[in-house]
Amino acid sequence: MLYHDKKLQYPVKVESPDPVYARMLQQAIGGIEGEIRVCMQYFFQAWGARGPTTKYRDMLLNTATEEMGHIEMLATAVALNLENAPTKLQEAGVADTVVGAVMGGENPRHVVEGMLHRHLLSTGMAALPANCEGVPFDMSHIYASGNLAADMYCNVAAETTGRVLAVRLSNATNDPGMKDMWSFLIARDVMHQQQWLAVIEEMGGNETTLPIPNSFPQTEERTEFSYAFFATGVDGSPPPEGRFTSGPSLDGKGTFSVFQNRPMGEEPVLGPARPDSGAQSEQMA
Amino acid sequence: MLYHDKKLQYPVKVESPDPVYARMLQQAIGGIEGEIRVCMQYFFQAWGARGPTTKYRDMLLNTATEEMGHIEMLATAVALNLENAPTKLQEAGVADTVVGAVMGGENPRHVVEGMLHRHLLSTGMAALPANCEGVPFDMSHIYASGNLAADMYCNVAAETTGRVLAVRLSNATNDPGMKDMWSFLIARDVMHQQQWLAVIEEMGGNETTLPIPNSFPQTEERTEFSYAFFATGVDGSPPPEGRFTSGPSLDGKGTFSVFQNRPMGEEPVLGPARPDSGAQSEQMA
Amino acid sequence: MLYHDKKLQYPVKVESPDPVYARMLQQAIGGIEGEIRVCMQYFFQAWGARGPTTKYRDMLLNTATEEMGHIEMLATAVALNLENAPTKLQEAGVADTVVGAVMGGENPRHVVEGMLHRHLLSTGMAALPANCEGVPFDMSHIYASGNLAADMYCNVAAETTGRVLAVRLSNATNDPGMKDMWSFLIARDVMHQQQWLAVIEEMGGNETTLPIPNSFPQTEERTEFSYAFFATGVDGSPPPEGRFTSGPSLDGKGTFSVFQNRPMGEEPVLGPARPDSGAQSEQMA
Amino acid sequence: MLYHDKKLQYPVKVESPDPVYARMLQQAIGGIEGEIRVCMQYFFQAWGARGPTTKYRDMLLNTATEEMGHIEMLATAVALNLENAPTKLQEAGVADTVVGAVMGGENPRHVVEGMLHRHLLSTGMAALPANCEGVPFDMSHIYASGNLAADMYCNVAAETTGRVLAVRLSNATNDPGMKDMWSFLIARDVMHQQQWLAVIEEMGGNETTLPIPNSFPQTEERTEFSYAFFATGVDGSPPPEGRFTSGPSLDGKGTFSVFQNRPMGEEPVLGPARPDSGAQSEQMA
Amino acid sequence: MLYHDKKLQYPVKVESPDPVYARMLQQAIGGIEGEIRVCMQYFFQAWGARGPTTKYRDMLLNTATEEMGHIEMLATAVALNLENAPTKLQEAGVADTVVGAVMGGENPRHVVEGMLHRHLLSTGMAALPANCEGVPFDMSHIYASGNLAADMYCNVAAETTGRVLAVRLSNATNDPGMKDMWSFLIARDVMHQQQWLAVIEEMGGNETTLPIPNSFPQTEERTEFSYAFFATGVDGSPPPEGRFTSGPSLDGKGTFSVFQNRPMGEEPVLGPARPDSGAQSEQMA
Amino acid sequence: MLYHDKKLQYPVKVESPDPVYARMLQQAIGGIEGEIRVCMQYFFQAWGARGPTTKYRDMLLNTATEEMGHIEMLATAVALNLENAPTKLQEAGVADTVVGAVMGGENPRHVVEGMLHRHLLSTGMAALPANCEGVPFDMSHIYASGNLAADMYCNVAAETTGRVLAVRLSNATNDPGMKDMWSFLIARDVMHQQQWLAVIEEMGGNETTLPIPNSFPQTEERTEFSYAFFATGVDGSPPPEGRFTSGPSLDGKGTFSVFQNRPMGEEPVLGPARPDSGAQSEQMA
Repeated sequence: MLYHDKKLQYPVKVESPDPVYARMLQQAIGGIEGEIRVCMQYFFQAWGARGPTTKYRDMLLNTATEEMGHIEMLATAVALNLENAPTKLQEAGVADTVVGAVMGGENPRHVVEGMLHRHLLSTGMAALPANCEGVPFDMSHIYASGNLAADMYCNVAAETTGRVLAVRLSNATNDPGMKDMWSFLIARDVMHQQQWLAVIEEMGGNETTLPIPNSFPQTEERTEFSYAFFATGVDGSPPPEGRFTSGPSLDGKGTFSVFQNRPMGEEPVLGPARPDSGAQSEQMA
Repeated sequence: MLYHDKKLQYPVKVESPDPVYARMLQQAIGGIEGEIRVCMQYFFQAWGARGPTTKYRDMLLNTATEEMGHIEMLATAVALNLENAPTKLQEAGVADTVVGAVMGGENPRHVVEGMLHRHLLSTGMAALPANCEGVPFDMSHIYASGNLAADMYCNVAAETTGRVLAVRLSNATNDPGMKDMWSFLIARDVMHQQQWLAVIEEMGGNETTLPIPNSFPQTEERTEFSYAFFATGVDGSPPPEGRFTSGPSLDGKGTFSVFQNRPMGEEPVLGPARPDSGAQSEQMA
Repeated sequence: MLYHDKKLQYPVKVESPDPVYARMLQQAIGGIEGEIRVCMQYFFQAWGARGPTTKYRDMLLNTATEEMGHIEMLATAVALNLENAPTKLQEAGVADTVVGAVMGGENPRHVVEGMLHRHLLSTGMAALPANCEGVPFDMSHIYASGNLAADMYCNVAAETTGRVLAVRLSNATNDPGMKDMWSFLIARDVMHQQQWLAVIEEMGGNETTLPIPNSFPQTEERTEFSYAFFATGVDGSPPPEGRFTSGPSLDGKGTFSVFQNRPMGEEPVLGPARPDSGAQSEQMA
Repeated sequence: MLYHDKKLQYPVKVESPDPVYARMLQQAIGGIEGEIRVCMQYFFQAWGARGPTTKYRDMLLNTATEEMGHIEMLATAVALNLENAPTKLQEAGVADTVVGAVMGGENPRHVVEGMLHRHLLSTGMAALPANCEGVPFDMSHIYASGNLAADMYCNVAAETTGRVLAVRLSNATNDPGMKDMWSFLIARDVMHQQQWLAVIEEMGGNETTLPIPNSFPQTEERTEFSYAFFATGVDGSPPPEGRFTSGPSLDGKGTFSVFQNRPMGEEPVLGPARPDSGAQSEQMA
Repeated sequence: MLYHDKKLQYPVKVESPDPVYARMLQQAIGGIEGEIRVCMQYFFQAWGARGPTTKYRDMLLNTATEEMGHIEMLATAVALNLENAPTKLQEAGVADTVVGAVMGGENPRHVVEGMLHRHLLSTGMAALPANCEGVPFDMSHIYASGNLAADMYCNVAAETTGRVLAVRLSNATNDPGMKDMWSFLIARDVMHQQQWLAVIEEMGGNETTLPIPNSFPQTEERTEFSYAFFATGVDGSPPPEGRFTSGPSLDGKGTFSVFQNRPMGEEPVLGPARPDSGAQSEQMA
Repeated sequence: MLYHDKKLQYPVKVESPDPVYARMLQQAIGGIEGEIRVCMQYFFQAWGARGPTTKYRDMLLNTATEEMGHIEMLATAVALNLENAPTKLQEAGVADTVVGAVMGGENPRHVVEGMLHRHLLSTGMAALPANCEGVPFDMSHIYASGNLAADMYCNVAAETTGRVLAVRLSNATNDPGMKDMWSFLIARDVMHQQQWLAVIEEMGGNETTLPIPNSFPQTEERTEFSYAFFATGVDGSPPPEGRFTSGPSLDGKGTFSVFQNRPMGEEPVLGPARPDSGAQSEQMA
């Protein structure tokens, strides 16, 4: 269970409110690379964690709880950036007349105001659980597979795309308050990348954890295909050479090779449609 | 561009068609851990790949093209497992009378037949681009961030959850044909896990690639928080000890520590609602 | 069943077609606060209404049918506002040269035209069943619970957010035709707020209808928690005082109090993962 | 920001693990009537709350924080109910032979096991942020309008449909542990219904808060339609009589009446399609 | 605008209520082949219809209005089929003991009851605007392109998949009431297929309407590819011969031929990632 | 299975990169009228094709494979149009001061840059599998009914809306490279419209294929309603006359007529809510 503090984890200040930037910040709240995603992903992984100890459940709860505070920070940043956003389409006036004359009768400021109105229309100038284009966050992005190692890689994926986004958002603003907020959140993403990879290392690294899941006996797989890069070039051209085309595999259990892809199966033939299946009569022969 | 072969990449045989298993197989087609996801993810990563060479574009195209053949194999497996599925709700008869008497008037076979009818109702006994519960695949799950290292971890995440799913599906069947198909696909997932991790190693491993993106100067982040595990326990209890709470960080640039989370910011205060913003009058003071 | 009239329920006139406003109007068609939502919600509540009489089914059918005419009015308003929208990106010319020089080479009018092209691209200048950001309306927002009182509150929620939106849209335009249309629709939202609350009053008001559902015996609930405000402040600080922290409850069945939240349960411990469940081996101990 | 406690808010015990019930419980986690919805709705309302004081922000944070603990309880209940769920489709055996003979060759137990496999396939026997049919929760259901009174009614709607669901789930089980959990959660839903209605009362009740928003001057609406029930019966038949067809309105500002719906507008005529709009040539005349 | 009649367009009777069939019927309400789709598609096409006359607007309004009555019929059929559905999981008893003994302790009736509980949990035994698997209808399926001929083919597509579904649902039941309802709805689908194709004929048939849109000058397309079937077989094998590989085209403007697909473009090379774009440093060279 | 070629099917050149146009192009990738849709639709139809021969499976595979190359072309076009897109919000400077003075303090270029940032934020300047408003493509739009004739009409619908979109996108640009790309893709859409209609003709045309499905005996439908246009005008006014109101039906099996819609059924009456169904007590009488 949880407790709350009215204060924010880290200061959120906005010197020059910017409704355009508010909109961009939404990607870090409700985008697939955003904070709702990591927060809920870590909670669901914690709540479903099975064996060997409750250690990872507890670790996940710590970080999930922290992430909830990040959503709060970003939602606050959105609301502060919307403080001076327009609430009505600009009335015609002198300035419009001048610009309108130049541009042939349409006022671009008016147009962009319209573009920003979703926050007014739906929230009265506050954050939404949606991305920067208004697409609501969809919980199918909560990856919690029940396999601890797979989950750690899902978390690394989330934190790397998350920090890429954070860097892009920091680069896009010159507001000192926003820059400061990002200097903190970007640092936290560093740690979160580290900690999930540290669990992999703690579990034994590549040689122990791979292939994931490590509980399926590889004797039951066609291991002649387990370390082969399949090339699909139509003219039989080789794939680019790399760490993945020759040399020992990362788990120490095989050797990389290249295999020119070709059909090992046949053309499939399905049975005819049955009489009462709603197909055309001709399909039933 | 692409070319096709009418034959399958690997044989798909079904000895005992099983509509229940057909439905489970859908998760490997249109589930978030499934083949449509990896296929389209690799294609979109390839099509948007920028620098340093076209090597990774080409590598991704090879594997994306292979994955398209896996969707085909699974779609064929679904259709073959549906060959004998019921097309109408069971009529009452002798058997029903017997069982009905036992169970109080309802025929469970009739009920489960109804449960399986989605494939009949929508496809006439064929595969859908949806998961095992009929939820259509949604392309927001195609992760292609434009950062090569982040994308590789997204691919590892996809292939680890993918192999976990494949193992579960193999474990759930006794059909020799299905078992054989999985012995191949599970092997391919091994290679795909390997190859994305091999790219990370080829790019220099943890010390070079981390933190991702490595193009943001860490001087601009609050590095005192970059390697600290934040503990959120209400009673100040420490987090579980692990590779992530002490010792050198994985990128060799810091030392792990523990930080007891506490507010560094203040309680946020937003401005009042504006007069024409559709709030209640009381909110506008 | 239904009948139609080619005429509109109320006049829809647009003096100055404005494609930006067309886009904003979409929120009132396909937004979660919009008219498709209320129309279909009332129809589905009507079609599923059970007991005590057909009175509420009939009442709901009247209002659902009215709402269909509101969607039509708004769709017409969108089409009329799009009459002069651009169909191609602006060609370079004198005006562009002037403005381009000022702004460094990009023509904002061109940019905003691109922003408005969804209506051209998908509908040829007509309304979509989507919100102001192009997100299609999703029928999961049709709330019809089968509990008459709960449904009435869902309807109040829909009509209050609906009128908030209508007021915002009226405030955003100066077009006399659009203002007139809103003067009607905003009035109708007043009535619809009234009528659902009137049903609650007719059913006996708070004392009779609460708690909803009123058919569950409160003897089976832990009533010591039924009228207690749970405070979650980490430092044990009290919640803000209000009508909800002391005094008689609204249903006359209890007294409000404050309860400092604390765990009454234990740390949960789940069983280990089973051998064939696709987890890592370490999770199976 | 938030803090966590490893313990649960209230005990969650399961005497007889039941995978079918686990699936039903999902509706209370990721259904539109479920706990993710209320938790995130209250947080987003809090984070965007404007004026007159921070009182309601704080109040909302308390209850949002509490709700997070309810998601945790339910996720735990799902995992415990799945402890003995099947991980593979049942092998043929003696029992099957017997029942198979009765039913004509298909084993219903096998079929229903397949139906339950989503939890195995995607989570390894844990909770998902999805409803009882596997549809992921979609954040567009977070209603936070920026109008305090409208938001309160959205919250009442959420808590009434939420308690209706809780009662149905309690009625569906005989497990003493589950019954006890529901006796607590159902009680909390009582309080939450109360507290949002108490805010409405605190704000002045119907006469002060209605119509919502109360900041739009009713002089700008066509008040002759503000308290009229519109009848749409094709034969001019009157609507059912009720509190909403005559007598004073609930806000004390009008009198209910009945209005036979008829067109006040004309048949709309849109302009022809433009030459470059991709319509058929015939539409351009 | 619309008017309503309390009576149904056609009788809906259910002799033997069947909750399984209720669930299947949902596909005809909220499936992509269902009645909400056609109803709303025809309304949105009508509301956006431009030129040459209001004839097609009017025609579309007639059929859209009729379809609304079909949703009502099906929603009624769902509610009637749910009249006797279970509201609680079956208690153990004598019958269970017998069957349980056979099957090893689990009661299939109990399991299937759980499967059917969505209607109870969310609607209290009534129809949902969702398909037979509980996926809510999503309004992106409303095709209204602004091109009259394209829209007619979208309507034919909707009515052919609609009648296929109707036939499958009729085949799946033996209930005389349901059979009678389908005998009507299937007939209506015949007419609706006819009427959209009749509009194409009325507009001049293939030679006049094709290619759609017919307002784009074919001189601006690479007509050497306009009537060529592209073969993509990896071994250069020809495609199957058919009406589409040789002979005059359907619009009388060309001759069908076969073209062996091959690249006419080059391998694309994108520019490097820019310094502040959040890519890895290596991508920026 | 598939093979790839690194080269594009047709040249994709962009003379003047235009991020606004990049965004519009997304509709042709991930819009419902776009290339992902047709590609996957043809693949799934092929993989599920039953009877009479494998001819249509093979034909569909050819065209599906071609379409994959079209997605690639468009994804390349998006990336090339984004080459010079802004990566940060414009800094204040001389030009801003000038324009800012005119417009009252806000810089429209800054605003539109924000609007375009989704591609930066999520992909680092590359294509997304989403439409021009960022809504991800949803696989429920893959129509594959199992009825060959119905599928052909679904394909015609896809290719007609697809060519309408292509024409609109061609009309919106003056870039010679983009114009050339469209001259090819528009030609291919002509052929694809032709080929699906050619299959209908090959199957016997209207008289043989209609009504779809042609495997349901029309003796089981109420044929008095099979060729009647239902008029729903409230005043009994006739529908517009057309090919669909009189004369022989297109399948030669009936004669068109007009039927004034009226209820043939009764007002439905549902049973009361059951005691444990979570309704209000009043509904249970």
